[in-house]
Amino acid sequence: MFRFTDRMASKALGKLLQGPKVCAEFAACKRCKVLSVENINPHVKKMEYAVRGPIVIRAGEIEQELKKGVSKPFADVIRANIGDCHAVGQKPLTFIRQVVALCSYPDLMESSQFPSDAKERAQRILEGCGGHSVGAYSDSAGVRVIREDVAKYISERDGFPCDPDDVFLSTGASDGIKSIMKLAMTGEGGDKRAGVLIPIPQYPLYTATIAEYNAYPIGYYLNEDKNWSLDMEELHRALKEAQPHCQPRAIVIINPGNPTGQVLTKENIQDIIRFAKDNNLVLMADEVYQHNVYASGCKFHSFKKVLMEMGPDYSSLELASFMSTSKGYMGECGFRGGYTEVINLDPGVKAMLVKSISAKLCSSVSGQAVMDVVVNPPRPGEPSYDQFKKEREMVLGQLAEKAKMVTETFNSIPGISCNTVQGAMYAFPSIELPKKAIQAAKDKGQAPDAFYCYNLLEETGICVVPGSGFGQVEGTWHFRTTILPPVEKLGEMLGRFRDFHIRFMDTYS
Amino acid sequence: MFRFTDRMASKALGKLLQGPKVCAEFAACKRCKVLSVENINPHVKKMEYAVRGPIVIRAGEIEQELKKGVSKPFADVIRANIGDCHAVGQKPLTFIRQVVALCSYPDLMESSQFPSDAKERAQRILEGCGGHSVGAYSDSAGVRVIREDVAKYISERDGFPCDPDDVFLSTGASDGIKSIMKLAMTGEGGDKRAGVLIPIPQYPLYTATIAEYNAYPIGYYLNEDKNWSLDMEELHRALKEAQPHCQPRAIVIINPGNPTGQVLTKENIQDIIRFAKDNNLVLMADEVYQHNVYASGCKFHSFKKVLMEMGPDYSSLELASFMSTSKGYMGECGFRGGYTEVINLDPGVKAMLVKSISAKLCSSVSGQAVMDVVVNPPRPGEPSYDQFKKEREMVLGQLAEKAKMVTETFNSIPGISCNTVQGAMYAFPSIELPKKAIQAAKDKGQAPDAFYCYNLLEETGICVVPGSGFGQVEGTWHFRTTILPPVEKLGEMLGRFRDFHIRFMDTYS
Repeated sequence: MFRFTDRMASKALGKLLQGPKVCAEFAACKRCKVLSVENINPHVKKMEYAVRGPIVIRAGEIEQELKKGVSKPFADVIRANIGDCHAVGQKPLTFIRQVVALCSYPDLMESSQFPSDAKERAQRILEGCGGHSVGAYSDSAGVRVIREDVAKYISERDGFPCDPDDVFLSTGASDGIKSIMKLAMTGEGGDKRAGVLIPIPQYPLYTATIAEYNAYPIGYYLNEDKNWSLDMEELHRALKEAQPHCQPRAIVIINPGNPTGQVLTKENIQDIIRFAKDNNLVLMADEVYQHNVYASGCKFHSFKKVLMEMGPDYSSLELASFMSTSKGYMGECGFRGGYTEVINLDPGVKAMLVKSISAKLCSSVSGQAVMDVVVNPPRPGEPSYDQFKKEREMVLGQLAEKAKMVTETFNSIPGISCNTVQGAMYAFPSIELPKKAIQAAKDKGQAPDAFYCYNLLEETGICVVPGSGFGQVEGTWHFRTTILPPVEKLGEMLGRFRDFHIRFMDTYS
Repeated sequence: MFRFTDRMASKALGKLLQGPKVCAEFAACKRCKVLSVENINPHVKKMEYAVRGPIVIRAGEIEQELKKGVSKPFADVIRANIGDCHAVGQKPLTFIRQVVALCSYPDLMESSQFPSDAKERAQRILEGCGGHSVGAYSDSAGVRVIREDVAKYISERDGFPCDPDDVFLSTGASDGIKSIMKLAMTGEGGDKRAGVLIPIPQYPLYTATIAEYNAYPIGYYLNEDKNWSLDMEELHRALKEAQPHCQPRAIVIINPGNPTGQVLTKENIQDIIRFAKDNNLVLMADEVYQHNVYASGCKFHSFKKVLMEMGPDYSSLELASFMSTSKGYMGECGFRGGYTEVINLDPGVKAMLVKSISAKLCSSVSGQAVMDVVVNPPRPGEPSYDQFKKEREMVLGQLAEKAKMVTETFNSIPGISCNTVQGAMYAFPSIELPKKAIQAAKDKGQAPDAFYCYNLLEETGICVVPGSGFGQVEGTWHFRTTILPPVEKLGEMLGRFRDFHIRFMDTYS
């Protein structure tokens, strides 16, 4: 049955010559594989995605152990590793879900259980769908009426026009970010690779995508001493140092910041726009937390608006802004809705973008429907307005309260310091680790902050992500926690955290 | 405001030296862009995706013209370019949509409008979701209970066990296909690129993905004279010719075939499995049309089942099988549900796969819910069984009727010949084009079959895709049409088609 070919023999020999990892009887071996960790795509091998990394896998195992009755010093795992609102108890907004249910099962249009404005929204979406079904593919860029609603939202937000043809609906924001970054790749290796400026600390999607695309990451450090603000000098330094190693093509800004929670000032945004223009960079603005601003005196300014206000000198700057249904007050992560607005793109390049996304067919149409509600919520006077407003304000109000609570609690623990969480959904406190702890981590082959976080998880059930997964100034240690658990649970979590930290410091100092 | 830097000057100069396309005042120019068609990702530039290509864009324009009252020799555009069932009038299955609506808006659990089995399915899915919400991210590989249901479906289908840990839910099948192909890339260029065997004609996702990943397409021709069957000699020829140019790593089989509609015999599948094993190739089985088999004597055999029956000699062969919610009888394209089963993967490689998909977070959870119903439909005795069965059988029965109707009609038109549509949703007839038509196409800079299809579209409103978008033996010409429009509409379409073809032949002979 089994045929031994010359090609296999030479391949087997080649593998044998490579080292000891390959079975001596490769060709006839029942276990040898075409794909091995040694020979798979090296760029995939390099990808890291900390918010779903090994510590999160361990958290899942602990949950299983708890279910099986294994005794632990805690009753449950608190997942503060990922911005997954509903998973930690946030309730979906009624109106969003009503519209999705109506779109999914239009027989409900007859039901008195649904308000008229939800029915109108759903009807309008369905009329924009092929065969009036959310089961039809949409255009690659999304259902036309939804793109029009996105454009209207953006123009009302900014006071500047937005063209629906500049709007592309995507599978969450991640998918839009990857599509734009993909365009900017050079297709070359070594020092001809595309360089992409990213903040450090950053959301690991960026480093993962840069690794996958074999691009060159140009890290610029956020200034922890100034509440994670963005210094222009640091941008210049980072770019200059990277220039011999790559072709810088794009800069990523996350505002409000993830994992760092800062909110950029208008002046800062203006400086960044000038920097991008002067240095010939595509500006990628990750603005998925645009609804999540809590600190007094802070305000969200969109890059689009600031760019438009800066006048015609900047009207050629290629800007992509990304938005998601997963964050904000809606937290509809599982629907995978998102959009990208791209302005000032060369028309030929835009055609290439449309072509490149067409091979993915389209993003989930029910995710698109969720996005439609986000950009076109009930208006004053509509039947669902009051309830929608109340539900939205409750979520955002609690997030503001939790942002404050997290900042204050961490700052009250000796050895931890935490910048004000001005926006987004995370805190990124720094921890002073004793030398003995650093040595213990080294002995285990772990980064010191990973060692800390693993200990935290095993002793308290709290799952946070080590700072090393996001990047940090060498010799400093951090972790990222979400601020999402319900107020009471968050209080309990911070209590468990404090006790752990004190014990940990006692053990290692 | 505008600062002219040395770097920009040298960049501008560099661009000027490259050719005449760049503006002479690049640095100060308000229109010059970072990204141009000349400098964007060359792999993206090479991607082509015919089923959403320029002819489809033209179809959309014609629809707009019709809306504006432009007079045409037809009243509507018939979109037979893409397998988008609901868009051409197929009704969604009631039970699928009930489950999705219940998952989306659990308040409906109290409603008497929904049968108990739909409620039970929805409840079970929700219990598998974080916070019992489809708005929470699932695990990267999908909701656990849904993966278990997929595994149960596969093991019942094949009579061999399936491990839920081998099942990965994806955004349609395309996303799963891309994830597996990505793993098999070498990360190298030139003749060290990964080679992937694909059928010619093929579904353009494959060539698009191969272009995007800078892999090497190894086309093997299907035998049109034998109803698009797969000759083993041709596989050997294709592989041998490609070996100097790449590192062959994988083979793609589409069964039932797209665009060609053939169904593989068990013997053929056995031969392919031997070929993959002997030649050290990962086997990628695109089995999204597994429910779509119409011709008498034809039967769907899964690669998994045949592989398992071949015994332990083949138990190391890495096999990935892809499935979708978009095809079959459900046609739920817009929900973007899909799964991949991967067996015999090296555990380290599997860990890399899990890691690489984790940066995408997860596929749409409502799409996952649709997949759950597909693999776990109402069983005999359950309240929804009869209606589900009736609706499913109606769709599949009509598809069988339409497959026959399309084959017979095309074969009755002189100059067109069409193999039996044994399965899937498409016909791929060949057309004999007169020399004058070929010359007229040449004069317009079009492929002759594209010229034919554009004329068809302009004169009749029928949108089909030229064979050149799928690949074909040189000097032969084809087009792909779906068999999806409702019976009556399809009859009308075939009538318009016949008239056009006769006119076209008259004009050019």
